[in-house]
Amino acid sequence: MQPKSYDLVVIGSGPAGQKGAICAAKMRKKVAVIERKRTIGGVCVHTGTIPSKTLREAVLYLTGFQQRTFYGRNYMLKDHISMTDLTFRANSVMAREIEVIRDQLHRNNVDIIEGSARILEPHTLEVSLEDDSMLLHAEHILVACGTRPAHDACIPIDGKHIFDSDQITQMEQIPRELIIVGAGVIGLEYASMMAALGVKVTIIDQRPTMLDFVDREIIESLCFHLRQHRTTFRLGEEVTSVVWDEERGRVIAKLHSGKTVHGDGLLFTVGRQANADVIGVDAAGLKPDSRGRLKVNNHFQTEVPHIYAAGDVIGFPALASTAMEQGRLASCHMFGKPGEMVPNLVPYGIYTVPEISMVGQTEDQLTKAGVPYEVGIARYEELAKGQMLGDETGLLKILFHPETLKLLGVHGIGDRASEIIHIGQAVLALGGTLEYFRDNVFNYPTLAEAYKVAALDGLNKL
Amino acid sequence: MQPKSYDLVVIGSGPAGQKGAICAAKMRKKVAVIERKRTIGGVCVHTGTIPSKTLREAVLYLTGFQQRTFYGRNYMLKDHISMTDLTFRANSVMAREIEVIRDQLHRNNVDIIEGSARILEPHTLEVSLEDDSMLLHAEHILVACGTRPAHDACIPIDGKHIFDSDQITQMEQIPRELIIVGAGVIGLEYASMMAALGVKVTIIDQRPTMLDFVDREIIESLCFHLRQHRTTFRLGEEVTSVVWDEERGRVIAKLHSGKTVHGDGLLFTVGRQANADVIGVDAAGLKPDSRGRLKVNNHFQTEVPHIYAAGDVIGFPALASTAMEQGRLASCHMFGKPGEMVPNLVPYGIYTVPEISMVGQTEDQLTKAGVPYEVGIARYEELAKGQMLGDETGLLKILFHPETLKLLGVHGIGDRASEIIHIGQAVLALGGTLEYFRDNVFNYPTLAEAYKVAALDGLNKL
Repeated sequence: MQPKSYDLVVIGSGPAGQKGAICAAKMRKKVAVIERKRTIGGVCVHTGTIPSKTLREAVLYLTGFQQRTFYGRNYMLKDHISMTDLTFRANSVMAREIEVIRDQLHRNNVDIIEGSARILEPHTLEVSLEDDSMLLHAEHILVACGTRPAHDACIPIDGKHIFDSDQITQMEQIPRELIIVGAGVIGLEYASMMAALGVKVTIIDQRPTMLDFVDREIIESLCFHLRQHRTTFRLGEEVTSVVWDEERGRVIAKLHSGKTVHGDGLLFTVGRQANADVIGVDAAGLKPDSRGRLKVNNHFQTEVPHIYAAGDVIGFPALASTAMEQGRLASCHMFGKPGEMVPNLVPYGIYTVPEISMVGQTEDQLTKAGVPYEVGIARYEELAKGQMLGDETGLLKILFHPETLKLLGVHGIGDRASEIIHIGQAVLALGGTLEYFRDNVFNYPTLAEAYKVAALDGLNKL
Repeated sequence: MQPKSYDLVVIGSGPAGQKGAICAAKMRKKVAVIERKRTIGGVCVHTGTIPSKTLREAVLYLTGFQQRTFYGRNYMLKDHISMTDLTFRANSVMAREIEVIRDQLHRNNVDIIEGSARILEPHTLEVSLEDDSMLLHAEHILVACGTRPAHDACIPIDGKHIFDSDQITQMEQIPRELIIVGAGVIGLEYASMMAALGVKVTIIDQRPTMLDFVDREIIESLCFHLRQHRTTFRLGEEVTSVVWDEERGRVIAKLHSGKTVHGDGLLFTVGRQANADVIGVDAAGLKPDSRGRLKVNNHFQTEVPHIYAAGDVIGFPALASTAMEQGRLASCHMFGKPGEMVPNLVPYGIYTVPEISMVGQTEDQLTKAGVPYEVGIARYEELAKGQMLGDETGLLKILFHPETLKLLGVHGIGDRASEIIHIGQAVLALGGTLEYFRDNVFNYPTLAEAYKVAALDGLNKL
């Protein structure tokens, strides 16, 4: 049988795959997306962004977290929060999101093929279906096959007491004490949620510092908040063994320094293994690195010009937001409408409690580059809206050039930080100065007002 | 005794007065703010913006309003919400806000004089203190004396059953049925809160349409939501009499059309009377209009060049946000650093449920001006964050020029609309086009993503 022929075959239906497919379809190309059964939307929808961020909203609501400013530090909306209380909402959002994605792909006439893809030759793919297989011919291929959790020989993941980050919603109950190995974005997001739920968390990481791309003041503020909620940090410490002690019903982690850490459960969040190694990219002449990742150029093109890769499979920053744009730019380039991503204008959102967001450069980067800067700060406690929402600890910090007044970076921690960061992003992208914030009206009361307060603070320092 | 001499005397400590005073103080001018006892912060802090917006946050939380998407339409977090539950939070926010304002004025060496101001001569003011009075000499005067609720002969406000908008927190209990006279911003904001609490609201207004400066689609969406929560609109109807029927414990309002409307309470929100008539502006040669307002030029200067006016006393839009900027610009102008407000870049935030915000031009304005435009729309139900927050009905609409792609206006209704509008405002102010939204990365999941979705929708229509 003749293989079915496409202008573009996308492997994976996560954010990169979706947006790549839709972008090509809008240019009237014939497009197919291959995804394994029951996993439309990829890790993002099933075990990653969507469930974790929905869990977070449920935690914030059910604990009445922000209401503690008004009702006292030990206020809890619901006394005994179960895992079902939390996952209930995630399931409904996931189901809805899958529907939205399917609908978008259908509306754009993208074929969705449910099966496992394998590249056989540079332009030929085989898809293993339930009890059959089919061949596809592809003018272009977009590899957007994502990642799976990496495992470590000394951590016996069992999905019952010792979990990887894809398994967290399988926890039967919320532990009283949780060990988290890995102080990256995933580890810190889950640590925040658990701490808000009253869980005593211990975070262990080999590295002596956390999230090096984030402003130090913001990270210290996050640490302060986590510690306020009984979190212990063990940084610069290596885990040498983990066991489940059946008798005492405890997880026991031993550290290289000789310390022992106990918990009712352990969550392992160190690293993700990209899936490029399991889809036969070698048959097309590509060689993934040791963590299964592919290398691409600025247009998301691999060394084989008609094969592109986007999303988590190409590594940092491995965010749904950047993945979408990478997928879209890959398709634009393959069909002759190239664009480029300006790394300095990409915002980062970290959904800890409180949430963190940033765009542009950090103080460290500017200092290293020898760029002089001044700082303007607004604290949420000075903002009427911060008080109304019960967030009195949030902070927005803007970095700007003391002579040109050009905005250089924005760093925020606090409620809605990941929303309001886009105001700074627009001013940064469009070359605005601090005077923009000084001279424009902001709705009152909003958290967006923080920009005006921070700008006035900064200008007063000159 | 020699009157104490100031570069600037500000009458009123609301948003306009505060920012005007601080701006002048930062230019090293000697400044005094006069405010009546126990009303630092003005209407904004005491009976207006702060209490009403805090009440709104309390209503949203205590009713579990947005959680209804997950837990069903009749979900209520708390079964019997009392007025104390609602005002409790407002009182703490008000107290904190007064402290913040006092602190800001003190830090900037602004004298706060508690008493009633009266202009005696163009440069001389008398302040009546508790049991004394003092004279001040002022090089410049900033009139920021605000407004009081307007009353109507046929509506016998008693503060017990029939309230004006300054009295709402005095309600002893939440009515089951409430009549609201006036479908302006204040009326609609309180109608929304009450409807969210399960109160059956009837809104009456003489005018056939509501909030004419707002996009029609957005207003229709608001009406739809209010009706879903059992609100009745009686537009184009005039109230001819209101009485409290002691026997039946009911307020009875008769309309010109012959209809009778009943309720447990009535809230009158039609118009505000500016206070310029009670501070003796005539002694300086100024004549307030029939509603007590003063006329100013683009620099907020009255006809008497050393007397400026800002805030609610100069009329529309009478928002805290614009008042602050007016106060600041007045001081800048009087001390030789003029700036100007660009009316088209002023955002409006209306804290109904759902909230409304806008910046730039409406479809009506563009059509009248003969400017061609195209529309891009994003619905919150398409956004992962909308689903997570339980807001499936929000909407962001962007208007842009079909040839230049320049942004012309942004109109939103839904959760956080008043925050994310500032993203559009920055792009509008800095001359950006729809391509800005298409080409930049937005944090995922956020409501800010609506801009990207709307931009792609709009561009697809070309």
